[in-house]
Amino acid sequence: MERKTDVLVVGGGPAGIITAVTARKYYPDKDIVVMKDVEHGVIPCGIPYMFASLKNPDENKLGNAALDNNKIDCVIDMAVKIDKEKKSVLTDKGDTYFYDKLVLAVGSTPVNLPIPGIDKKGVYSIPKDLNYLKEIIIEIKRYKKILVIGGGFIGVEFADELAKLDEKEVALVEMLPSILANSFDPEFSKIAEDKLKEAGVNIMTGISVKEILGDQKVEKVKLSDGSELEIDAIILGVGSIPDVHLAHEAGLDSDKRKGIFVDEYMRTGESDIFAVGDCACKRDFYTRKPIPVMLASTATAEARIAGANLYKIKVVRENKGTIAIYSTYLDGLVFGSAGLTETTALAEGFEIAIGNVEGVDKHPGSLPGASKSKLKLIFSKQSGIILGGQVSGGMSCAQIINIIGVAIQKRMSYTELETLQMATHPYLTSAPTVYPLVVAAQNAGSNMRS
Amino acid sequence: MERKTDVLVVGGGPAGIITAVTARKYYPDKDIVVMKDVEHGVIPCGIPYMFASLKNPDENKLGNAALDNNKIDCVIDMAVKIDKEKKSVLTDKGDTYFYDKLVLAVGSTPVNLPIPGIDKKGVYSIPKDLNYLKEIIIEIKRYKKILVIGGGFIGVEFADELAKLDEKEVALVEMLPSILANSFDPEFSKIAEDKLKEAGVNIMTGISVKEILGDQKVEKVKLSDGSELEIDAIILGVGSIPDVHLAHEAGLDSDKRKGIFVDEYMRTGESDIFAVGDCACKRDFYTRKPIPVMLASTATAEARIAGANLYKIKVVRENKGTIAIYSTYLDGLVFGSAGLTETTALAEGFEIAIGNVEGVDKHPGSLPGASKSKLKLIFSKQSGIILGGQVSGGMSCAQIINIIGVAIQKRMSYTELETLQMATHPYLTSAPTVYPLVVAAQNAGSNMRS
Repeated sequence: MERKTDVLVVGGGPAGIITAVTARKYYPDKDIVVMKDVEHGVIPCGIPYMFASLKNPDENKLGNAALDNNKIDCVIDMAVKIDKEKKSVLTDKGDTYFYDKLVLAVGSTPVNLPIPGIDKKGVYSIPKDLNYLKEIIIEIKRYKKILVIGGGFIGVEFADELAKLDEKEVALVEMLPSILANSFDPEFSKIAEDKLKEAGVNIMTGISVKEILGDQKVEKVKLSDGSELEIDAIILGVGSIPDVHLAHEAGLDSDKRKGIFVDEYMRTGESDIFAVGDCACKRDFYTRKPIPVMLASTATAEARIAGANLYKIKVVRENKGTIAIYSTYLDGLVFGSAGLTETTALAEGFEIAIGNVEGVDKHPGSLPGASKSKLKLIFSKQSGIILGGQVSGGMSCAQIINIIGVAIQKRMSYTELETLQMATHPYLTSAPTVYPLVVAAQNAGSNMRS
Repeated sequence: MERKTDVLVVGGGPAGIITAVTARKYYPDKDIVVMKDVEHGVIPCGIPYMFASLKNPDENKLGNAALDNNKIDCVIDMAVKIDKEKKSVLTDKGDTYFYDKLVLAVGSTPVNLPIPGIDKKGVYSIPKDLNYLKEIIIEIKRYKKILVIGGGFIGVEFADELAKLDEKEVALVEMLPSILANSFDPEFSKIAEDKLKEAGVNIMTGISVKEILGDQKVEKVKLSDGSELEIDAIILGVGSIPDVHLAHEAGLDSDKRKGIFVDEYMRTGESDIFAVGDCACKRDFYTRKPIPVMLASTATAEARIAGANLYKIKVVRENKGTIAIYSTYLDGLVFGSAGLTETTALAEGFEIAIGNVEGVDKHPGSLPGASKSKLKLIFSKQSGIILGGQVSGGMSCAQIINIIGVAIQKRMSYTELETLQMATHPYLTSAPTVYPLVVAAQNAGSNMRS
C-alpha cells in the first residue's frame, strides 16, 4: 500500500502525540498521521507506580483519545527505512508513506549492563511496553528479594514503590557515591537515602554489580567489594540510549549516545525532518553540552516547538536548551531539581554563589499538616543569574521547583527573586517574610557580596 | 530623651520588620531602630485562623526574633510627629529620634461602615492587635448567629473559619454580585460560594446591610432588600484604609484612600523618607492605576526593595507595580489569583484572549489523593503577554498561582508558556502532555488566531 500524508509522526509516546496535537492546532487543514508500533502505549513516568500504587496496571495505559479528538490518523506499524530523497517511509508491514514533513519521535531503549549473567532469567529491564510490563509485574510480585541496579530517578522510584508491597526485601545498588547524583547535591541525596532506608530499602552506594550468578535464574550477585548478595530478581534502572538507528541509516547526523542532532526548532540537518523526545539530542541550557535527559516533560516541550514550526516558524524557540527539571516523591517526601547542581556547576567551571534555606510550608508552623522544606539556589557569582535549584519537603515543593524552572528559563537574577511578589497564605505557604525562594536568593546575595 | 540613629523604621508589621532586616543585610554597619506601638504584633494573614484552626491565638504572635537576630533595636513607642527639616520624629512618650533615613511602615486601619447602629456592642472590626483579638475571639465564640459583612478575602476566610466552630450559624453579606469579585471572575467566585455553602455558610450577594438594629447590643440587621436578619454578632471585613495621617501632617504627598505616594524605589517626595506596606500607594502592574492591595506579601516585596536601597540604589526595582497576587483556602479547596481578571481587563480597555483548562493534579488521575483543578489565563490579544490568571483546586494550586505570578512579573508571552519546561511526576502533578499552564496558554493561542 502507498499513502500520501502531509505530516508523518513516527512514534506514539508523549513526544509523538504532542507534536501531532500541536500541529493540528497550528495547521488545521493538514493531514496528520501518527505511526506507532503497539496499539496501547504506556504513560512513561507512571511505570514504577504500576506495581503497587495503581490498582490495575491498565490504568497507566496511554490512550488514543488525544489523537481521535484532534482528527489525527493513528496507524499501527513500524517504520523500517526512511528515503529522504523520495520523502517516504517504508514500514514493517511493507507499506510506503510519503510525507511533506516527517517527525521522528522514536524514543529510547533501556541500556543493558555489560556484565556476565545479565541474560539470566529474573533480570528485567523496563521498556515502555504495556503488555510486557503487565507480565513482569506478575512475575516480580512472586519474588521476595529484589535488587534494583541504578540509583537515578527510575531506580529509586522502583525501590520506593516495591517497598510498599508486603514481604519484599528491596535493595538498591548505585555505583556513584550517592543516589540521584546527577540532579542533587549530596546533602539532598542524603535525605532521599534516609527516606528510602526508613521505608525499608537497603541502599548501597559507591558499589557496583560485577556479575550475576545462578543456574539459569538469578540467585545472587557479586559486588565490586567482593561480597555477594542473595537475590531473586533484578530490575535494571541504569538509563536508556536514544534510538538513532533509523535516522542514522537515512544519513541524518546523529550519535548513538547523544541522539539525533537537531537545532533549536527541533529540525534535523534535513529541513523537512524533525526529531523530538528521547531520540533527539538535548543540550544543557547553560553549558550547551549534550546531556542525557530523557523525560516526558522535556519531550512534550520539544514536541510543542516542533508541532508549531513544521511549515513555518510560528513560535520562536525561546527556550534555548534543556533545563533538566525533575521531581519525584519518595515515601511521602517531594524532591525537585532544575538546572545545574552545585557539583555540576563547579565541575563545569562556573563561579557560583549559593543560597540555602530551611522552612515550613504553612504559617504559623503550628497549623495542622505543616511540613518542613529545604531549598537551595545556585547563582552565577558575577552575573547574578540563577543556574539551578533543588528542593525537598512537602507537596508544595512539587510546584516550587516549577517556579525555579521558570526563573531559570527567564534567566532571572537574584535581585529579581529577592523582590518577587508571591501569593502566601497561612494554610498554603510559608510566611511572606520567610518565603523560601526569596530568602534563598537573599542569602545567595549576601554570599556574593562577601 | 533624644536619640540619633541611622535608619528609623516606624511600624513593626511585616513591612517594617523586612525593611529593617533587608537593610541590615545590605548595610551591615548602620544603626537600625524599629519603633512599634505594641510589644507583640500579630501575623496579619493568620488572623482569621486564630478562631478555630490554631489551638492557641498566641501561636499567631509576630515575634521579635528576626530583629534580635539581626541586631536591630526594637523600641515600643508611637511616632506622633515628623519634622522633615530637622530629620526627627517625636514620639508619644515625648522622646525625639533623629534619623538619616526614615521608613514609614505604619499600616492601615479597618474601615467602619457608615450605617446606623455601627457602634452597637457585638460589632467587631479586625485591627491587627493581638490582645484585642484575643478578647474578641472569646466574645465571638459565645455567640451563635454571626454575620460577616464583606465578601473579600478576609470576609470569606472569617466565614470559612467560623463555620468550623460547633453550633454556629454563619452568614456573609456581599454588596457586589459575587464574592471575591476583585480577584476572581464569576465562574471562580461561584465555586467559592458553593464551597462555603457546603460548609454551612449562608451566602448573600448583591445585597447590603442598611442598618444595625438592637437595644445596646446588635440584635438584627436590616438589608437593602427590606428584609431583616436576626444576628448575635457582626464581623466587619469591608477593607482598610492606609494610615497617612503622620505623613500628611509632615507635608508628604498622600491621599487618604490611595496612601502615601512613592516612586518605584519606595521613596516619598522627600528623598530620605521611604514608605512601604499598607500605608504606601500601590499601582497596578499593567494599568498603572492606584489599587488598594493590602497584603503582607506585597508589603514584604516592597520592604525588600526599600531596605536594599536606603542609601544607594543597590537593587534596581524590576517589579514595576503590584500584581495583586492572592491565594486562599476554603474548606479544603485552594483559590489563587494574580494580575488582571477577565472582568477587570475588559473594564480597563484591554483586548484579550482567554485560555481555560480543567485537569487533575496527578497522573493517571486514578492515583490516590488526586484533585480536580481549574485554571484560566488572560493574555493581551495582540502582544500575547500574560495579564493575569486564576486557579482553583487542590494544594498544588497554591504554588501554581506563584508560577503565574512569576510569568506576569517577567511579562511572559503565551508562546513561552506553551513551550515551558516543567517538572512533572505521577504523584505530584498532572501529566506533561496536559500540564494546565501549558494547555491554557495553548488554548489562549488558538483563541488569538481565531
